[in-house]
Amino acid sequence: MSQFPYDKEDAICALATPWAQSAIAILRCSGPDILEKLQGVFKSSKPLDSWTPNHMGYGHIINPKTQEVLDEVMAVYFKGPKSYTGQDSVEFNCHGSLPGIEAILEVFHNRGIRRASPGEFTFRAFINGKMDLTRAEAVQEIVSARTSQAQSLALNRLSGVIFQEIEAIKDLILTLNASVALALDYPDDEVEPPPVDEKAINQAVLRIDQMLASYKRGKLFQEGVTLALAGRTNAGKSSLFNLILKEERSIVSQIHGTTRDYLESTVTLGGIPLRIFDTAGLRNSQDPVEQEGMRRTGEIVDNAQLVLLVVDAQVGFLQEEQDFYKKYKEKTILCWNKVDACDSPAPKAAIAISALNGHGFPLLEQALLDRIFKDTPPVESPVVIDSQRQKELLETARFGLLRFLEGLNQQLPMDILSEDLRESLNALGEITGEVSSSDLLELMFSRFCVGK
Amino acid sequence: MSQFPYDKEDAICALATPWAQSAIAILRCSGPDILEKLQGVFKSSKPLDSWTPNHMGYGHIINPKTQEVLDEVMAVYFKGPKSYTGQDSVEFNCHGSLPGIEAILEVFHNRGIRRASPGEFTFRAFINGKMDLTRAEAVQEIVSARTSQAQSLALNRLSGVIFQEIEAIKDLILTLNASVALALDYPDDEVEPPPVDEKAINQAVLRIDQMLASYKRGKLFQEGVTLALAGRTNAGKSSLFNLILKEERSIVSQIHGTTRDYLESTVTLGGIPLRIFDTAGLRNSQDPVEQEGMRRTGEIVDNAQLVLLVVDAQVGFLQEEQDFYKKYKEKTILCWNKVDACDSPAPKAAIAISALNGHGFPLLEQALLDRIFKDTPPVESPVVIDSQRQKELLETARFGLLRFLEGLNQQLPMDILSEDLRESLNALGEITGEVSSSDLLELMFSRFCVGK
Repeated sequence: MSQFPYDKEDAICALATPWAQSAIAILRCSGPDILEKLQGVFKSSKPLDSWTPNHMGYGHIINPKTQEVLDEVMAVYFKGPKSYTGQDSVEFNCHGSLPGIEAILEVFHNRGIRRASPGEFTFRAFINGKMDLTRAEAVQEIVSARTSQAQSLALNRLSGVIFQEIEAIKDLILTLNASVALALDYPDDEVEPPPVDEKAINQAVLRIDQMLASYKRGKLFQEGVTLALAGRTNAGKSSLFNLILKEERSIVSQIHGTTRDYLESTVTLGGIPLRIFDTAGLRNSQDPVEQEGMRRTGEIVDNAQLVLLVVDAQVGFLQEEQDFYKKYKEKTILCWNKVDACDSPAPKAAIAISALNGHGFPLLEQALLDRIFKDTPPVESPVVIDSQRQKELLETARFGLLRFLEGLNQQLPMDILSEDLRESLNALGEITGEVSSSDLLELMFSRFCVGK
Repeated sequence: MSQFPYDKEDAICALATPWAQSAIAILRCSGPDILEKLQGVFKSSKPLDSWTPNHMGYGHIINPKTQEVLDEVMAVYFKGPKSYTGQDSVEFNCHGSLPGIEAILEVFHNRGIRRASPGEFTFRAFINGKMDLTRAEAVQEIVSARTSQAQSLALNRLSGVIFQEIEAIKDLILTLNASVALALDYPDDEVEPPPVDEKAINQAVLRIDQMLASYKRGKLFQEGVTLALAGRTNAGKSSLFNLILKEERSIVSQIHGTTRDYLESTVTLGGIPLRIFDTAGLRNSQDPVEQEGMRRTGEIVDNAQLVLLVVDAQVGFLQEEQDFYKKYKEKTILCWNKVDACDSPAPKAAIAISALNGHGFPLLEQALLDRIFKDTPPVESPVVIDSQRQKELLETARFGLLRFLEGLNQQLPMDILSEDLRESLNALGEITGEVSSSDLLELMFSRFCVGK
């Protein structure tokens, strides 16, 4: 259903709220001739084109063929270019009735208002100069954020901080480029060209490095971490699982498998979405169902980014657990559980806890956060990026600058050096959308949700 | 979490769109002091209380403690009484980000704006005279309608047709009541009281009867019918199931059980939501899993309102099928399937079909509709009701009128007759909410969705 490159002049519509029964649903429409298309479909005390823009008013959506009233709605007319898309747009607050919404969308369709593709409203906003690409990406990042920290970082990006930072870096490079261009224009001049300002270029590289360094952290907040609970049957995995869910107040979701399968839940830890899997107990068994459970446990542990190995302090650190720990040491935290019930000393590097009474939980939490943030240094950049697209373009820009510096040292001809700078500038321009291809745009906007 | 009777002066808020990631989410707030409560929470170029009512404008929701921006939003201020609730209200179109919505609701909570109970916005609309109870009920009926016909009937009710009909019936009774009151006031007068107009009362009864007659049909559109597909393994149940889903374009939902279990789907047939269950094949088996499947099939067939018994024409009408048909004859349609592959004549009352090529499907569809509408006569009433509450009150009103007529024939004293009329009027007044108790209101509004 991709119609890329989107036709920018089509009248489009979409349900901007989820497809589920609710109090209110929003239908958005946009297009240069949207008012004309809605004639005979939307009826109110006076025609829509005489409404004050941005005024929310009362009316009915009717089927122009049968004159049947499809819904009683509140409508707002946004007059382009003062609208989200930059075009004339209308938003209807309808009743959140699924058959009602379907009936309205069908009437819209019959009037030549087609269903919008994912991201098409924001695409129009971009094309019509309402926002650059980094802001457009932020729109979707806000919506899909899974923790308030991720949402807050994306909101910051929506305000244009990436755009400003990229423009500042470009300014540094453009100054350089001017010197280079001068050298190019007067290659045989007796006058020496002004020396290239290496400081400026080093500063540009530094600022790019800072943005790049923020990527890992940004991604962490956006995508989160998977954590598997492993351990023998009765070691207290499920109690620990429940304790984590209880202590981390914001449980995002909970999926129950069968008892022999696994449980999955998502909680927020320090702003990071943490997907936790409570696996089947580690033990040798001839029961085929349990063997299947073991196989899945192995798969979950292999795929998890972090593992909590829960050991029963009353039983001790058994050989099979030691083997497990050795195998997954890089990503495993050892939990010495049930210290409420016995005094047996914890092995080195283990954290003594009681899943029963919560003893040791803050330490465990800190250990988890330390592991999660181990490879992601604190951010010095004014912005945190989490878009792979932006990251790759920053790397391209950085590479061009470094090659320029290298060429400068090797006293390469200015026309070659100039190419490196142009490459950098192009990459930076692609980040904000100043330079763009329709392939790139398709890739980007197709990941959006419908109605944005 | 019931807080009934709702405090009408509290500031309340609710997510009026579904709790799921989406382009836009609506947060509604209402309360006499809502503008004050939102001070420091909503920031825009000028304070909300100086906004033109019903104007949609741009701003930010911020955490007043940390000054952190929680979201960029579009807001509308509805000045009471010209609002849905009749009170000052504000609606925010936020980004449909779940952690973002949570963060905003928490800030609202800290400012003393509590989460609304189900139906609380509509309850305020009722209390503040913005709509009568029948319209309030229609609001929820629109939202929960499962077919466009049901939604359209509810929309009609929202326009006030029930209210008008009830008022008209009350007028008929009130005229009578005047004669009765006259007789009561001057019992010993020499002048004969004007004769009671029996025509008027018969007309009131007739109009109540018509509304009552519409209830079955209204309920049918709202609640739909369950249909089980039964038959031996390989009789073509699954093909017929798929054919129905293909022919009835609007598939509402589809739930897959395991192969031994059953499949469930909802389609719309003549405006009626039809829940179809494809059951396990009828056959005797020693396999415990299959036996369990049989047991469930029996349960589904017992609970279904209609059954399609699918018989393989190539095999013939076997004894076990005849037994089944005899047992469930009242609600079963016999389908003589696979007529594309053989000529064996169909038993009496069977419908010859081919689930493979669609032969006979229109006939089957008509047979289904005939069965569905068998006990529900076409509606003569100007309105179709589907509220059990309204139906019961209409029955009470009707009963009062009939007893009045009976008493009139028996020449009972006027003060007794007068009681019957009062009872009728009270019941009718309860329908529109002119007469109401807090128990009734709690029961009614607690069935609403949050945000309405």
